[in-house]
Amino acid sequence: MNAIPKIEVCLSPSLLHLYDISNSIVVVIDIFRASSTIVAAMHNGAEKVIPIDSVESCIAQGALTRNSVTAGERDGKIAPGLSFGNSPSEYPRAFIEGKTLLLTTTNGTKLLHMAAEASQIIIGSFLNLSAICDYIISQNKDVLLACAAWKDKVNMEDALFAGAVVDRVKDSFEVYCDSGRITSGMYRNAIDFPSLIDYLKESTHYKRLSSYGLEADMEYCTQVDIHPVVPLYDGAALLPAIF
Amino acid sequence: MNAIPKIEVCLSPSLLHLYDISNSIVVVIDIFRASSTIVAAMHNGAEKVIPIDSVESCIAQGALTRNSVTAGERDGKIAPGLSFGNSPSEYPRAFIEGKTLLLTTTNGTKLLHMAAEASQIIIGSFLNLSAICDYIISQNKDVLLACAAWKDKVNMEDALFAGAVVDRVKDSFEVYCDSGRITSGMYRNAIDFPSLIDYLKESTHYKRLSSYGLEADMEYCTQVDIHPVVPLYDGAALLPAIF
Repeated sequence: MNAIPKIEVCLSPSLLHLYDISNSIVVVIDIFRASSTIVAAMHNGAEKVIPIDSVESCIAQGALTRNSVTAGERDGKIAPGLSFGNSPSEYPRAFIEGKTLLLTTTNGTKLLHMAAEASQIIIGSFLNLSAICDYIISQNKDVLLACAAWKDKVNMEDALFAGAVVDRVKDSFEVYCDSGRITSGMYRNAIDFPSLIDYLKESTHYKRLSSYGLEADMEYCTQVDIHPVVPLYDGAALLPAIF
Repeated sequence: MNAIPKIEVCLSPSLLHLYDISNSIVVVIDIFRASSTIVAAMHNGAEKVIPIDSVESCIAQGALTRNSVTAGERDGKIAPGLSFGNSPSEYPRAFIEGKTLLLTTTNGTKLLHMAAEASQIIIGSFLNLSAICDYIISQNKDVLLACAAWKDKVNMEDALFAGAVVDRVKDSFEVYCDSGRITSGMYRNAIDFPSLIDYLKESTHYKRLSSYGLEADMEYCTQVDIHPVVPLYDGAALLPAIF
């Protein structure tokens, strides 16, 4: 607990070891698309979301978990043995309400498990941007905005979201690192574009996912505040934070 | 050798392992202040510059090297046992011409030794920005712009220089990564400021070095093209590249 808590941005899981997170809230950011899918499913009534490392574990847990859905993709397609993909639009209320979503992703899940020692772990996306900002301000603790990146290389969409948070909460936190300044500068640029997705069209990930025909998915993921919920990790599952 | 070589930006030594540099030119960037000091000393006639890991080795090599100068700082002061500091303004022609500069720095030297497997290693700073751009275009090879950062945390000034290079050479290279797009966006923002140093005044490093009274040094380091030389590493020493 500090007078003025600090906020920092970690641009890649390969940099996470540089930060002392034991007393911090870590916001896990994997905009395209794990964070967005988790937030959408939870806001649409999923009872909980369990992030899982591997396809094999996901299949095994699916067989043991009542009223569950297994989900995950590899190379833009539903992974063999799983039932659904990693698209936020696959989880409308009529389908996901009351169910447990067992989700396996590569970058996002890895980062979440790497951050296990954090005081709290929550999931951030543009879909719940204001909810994330309200939540971290309410907690009065140091915050690390942790980008899942792509195979540990810095990516634009996760950095942009980190910058959006910094830009919005900067009066309530000490912006403690240059990564926070760099990313909030990106966000100030991005809001001059017709939409966030227009800003991101040059990004590596946009090009990669477009080659799978996932443009509409990415557009969904850059909508702001349509799913106001804060998924909070309890060490095993993500549940909606009460605050 | 490629039809269109690619250019990438590595924002921290902790990310260097993600890049295959065996056929690339690595540009080592440590704006405040190792890169700038090396470039200034070489342009002012230093016969060569030898980057050294530790103060102890620097003292030992100084005793063995004819017509040499030992230099390095710790916490903004000349390190005990060395003769000069890590400021580009300490090395005017009248002093450094014909001498060997034995320089020990923390972040920059570490990165240079980490990049040993690269096809070529050169030293970049704002002081030799155009020379660096001309050199890498002339070589027709892949390029990694490698930021020394600060204790592995991403910093604004090294990222800004990387962005300046990307912005200037983007028609001759494929900009291969989001870090290149993020940093060139920074540079486009920065050139709207009265000067680069004004843009950097919010940075962590500016604040830290200002506390040592080094504002004039940092202003020196953000001057563009006053020392047009390309220091090229031969595995032991930095010498002016001929091209």
